Amino acid sequence: MKIAGRHTRSVFLDEQGRVSVFDQRVLPFEIREYPLIDLSSAHDAIMHMVVRGAPLIGITAAFGLALHMRDDPSDKSVFNAADFLKSARPTAVNLAWAVDLMVQHLMALDLNARHEAALERAWQLLEEDVAVNQAIGQLGLELIRKVCAHRGRCHILTHCNAGWLATGDWGTALAPIYMAHDEGLHVHVYADETRPRSQGSLLTAFELHEHGVPVEVIVDNAGGHLMQAGDIDMVIVGTDRVAANGDVANKIGTYLKALAAKDNNIPFYVACPLSTIDHEIKDGCRDIPIEERSQNEVLNAPVLSAGKFSWLPSATSGVGARNPGFDVTPARLVTAIITQKGIVPATTEAIAKLA
Amino acid sequence: MKIAGRHTRSVFLDEQGRVSVFDQRVLPFEIREYPLIDLSSAHDAIMHMVVRGAPLIGITAAFGLALHMRDDPSDKSVFNAADFLKSARPTAVNLAWAVDLMVQHLMALDLNARHEAALERAWQLLEEDVAVNQAIGQLGLELIRKVCAHRGRCHILTHCNAGWLATGDWGTALAPIYMAHDEGLHVHVYADETRPRSQGSLLTAFELHEHGVPVEVIVDNAGGHLMQAGDIDMVIVGTDRVAANGDVANKIGTYLKALAAKDNNIPFYVACPLSTIDHEIKDGCRDIPIEERSQNEVLNAPVLSAGKFSWLPSATSGVGARNPGFDVTPARLVTAIITQKGIVPATTEAIAKLA
Repeated sequence: MKIAGRHTRSVFLDEQGRVSVFDQRVLPFEIREYPLIDLSSAHDAIMHMVVRGAPLIGITAAFGLALHMRDDPSDKSVFNAADFLKSARPTAVNLAWAVDLMVQHLMALDLNARHEAALERAWQLLEEDVAVNQAIGQLGLELIRKVCAHRGRCHILTHCNAGWLATGDWGTALAPIYMAHDEGLHVHVYADETRPRSQGSLLTAFELHEHGVPVEVIVDNAGGHLMQAGDIDMVIVGTDRVAANGDVANKIGTYLKALAAKDNNIPFYVACPLSTIDHEIKDGCRDIPIEERSQNEVLNAPVLSAGKFSWLPSATSGVGARNPGFDVTPARLVTAIITQKGIVPATTEAIAKLA
Repeated sequence: MKIAGRHTRSVFLDEQGRVSVFDQRVLPFEIREYPLIDLSSAHDAIMHMVVRGAPLIGITAAFGLALHMRDDPSDKSVFNAADFLKSARPTAVNLAWAVDLMVQHLMALDLNARHEAALERAWQLLEEDVAVNQAIGQLGLELIRKVCAHRGRCHILTHCNAGWLATGDWGTALAPIYMAHDEGLHVHVYADETRPRSQGSLLTAFELHEHGVPVEVIVDNAGGHLMQAGDIDMVIVGTDRVAANGDVANKIGTYLKALAAKDNNIPFYVACPLSTIDHEIKDGCRDIPIEERSQNEVLNAPVLSAGKFSWLPSATSGVGARNPGFDVTPARLVTAIITQKGIVPATTEAIAKLA
């Protein structure tokens, strides 16, 4: 996809040849590149949300491990770095998945081959993610085509950002939307603002608008009413972890939209690569760890102030806040999960077959 | 209740003896008084949300009509002013209720008695609203006492602001909470931020905190997860209009919290005076008019910037937005309605008895 008119992946080489990402803490108000210099900068990029989105977190961690091999390719160093990277954020399972995959790859290699091989594997991982998202896009596109054939339009609600900025390219939830738009279907997106970090109004609206897809921002409160009013035909979201029973962890507030979709008989789809499925977690509502983040995100709002991205006070002073970063949508509210291997119901049986 | 340490009603005489309100567009970052000088200033105060909250909108309209009687007390003037005031905002039924009540009162009087009598009636209306809210508070307090007796605490979620700032004093949804706190019960409030105007983080958190009631702000996305986690014992909200069938119009996003409360078996209460019940509307979901407000509220956020209350850009530039101001919660999701005449189920039969 494009940023500032230039075609790019979400991980790229900058003008000095450094592996780099876009600093998503300041998008779309500032286009700032962030070089991944070493293990520590990759860890920081994940922890401080320079990058976010389950697939991109995994890819960034892979590059972090690869870059670290230049500094110390020993087994001990690999294991320590892996633990360090996994600790950066708790909810997205792709982080552990990508790190484990890299560790396995490196263990089979001589020490002096590890740096180069790891970098190569990380780039490959990026391209694999892009291919996965294209497959997800093609499958999801079929669902949109059906709605358009029936109604002449497809109004889609999405929450947070599961677009190309959350992945290597294309996105998960947004991949079918880009493809539907590109083939001329009448597709339109309602982007939930997604407080506290407003990934919807800042990132999703930005990347869809850059590509020319019609998009309107709504506050997180509005989706239920628009569903009641018949203005939404479909919900598609991404996810940070799917449990073996089909429960889905995603950005805080997803559960509320799933409830409203069910109440209004609107399909609620979750798009993700197979790497987001955690077969070890039997009961998602009970066992998926939910990140509690700083209350500053709730008591302040991300705005454009004097030409700069700023967090400014948005609540009365002196009060506290709670800030769970994710919630878990029970499988019973999920119409289907769109993976690169097919669209499957959110049931234990169907998910087991994907293992 | 108190503001800046001073006991006050939400309508009061300023130092120059002018009927005044607090400008709620800049609270809590600035305490600014707004004098109601004439019909036009009262209309503007309602339309531009200097005042908001169904009961306070009604009271302000009554003062607007009263002040207009000084300028022109003719019948024609009364009717024109009544229509003008009612047009200021569409969703809250208390506006029409208060205006009609004033018109009826004025029609029975000689022209030269109208100004003084109308002002007197408006002040009386304010005090009647306070008494109604105290009655609502006492009834709601019983519900909180029961939860505290059982669990030793009562964690209450509320949406938007239905506190003293939305009424003459005490509030509707918050009246029981103030009383529970004052008698030493372990009550704690989660205040939904309530985008786009953030009445929760700006007004509800402010007035509860000023009174010493423990309050934490959460984003509108978080309530569902906190219910799943067992952190919420009860939901209490206000309302702008209750239909004859028990459907409840309230600030956008209320419906989503009602769905989550139902899904987690948590009681969902609506507190309001009888004047908020519109017996003429048979089916609330179908027939209550929903105000569509400016997209600027969605694309910007209210923040404190350089010591001033400001609306600053919070979305990528160039995109549009939808901004429905209210939604309607179906009666099936409402546990009960707390009125000054009793706590009643949200059913056609029970509501008809209140007529």
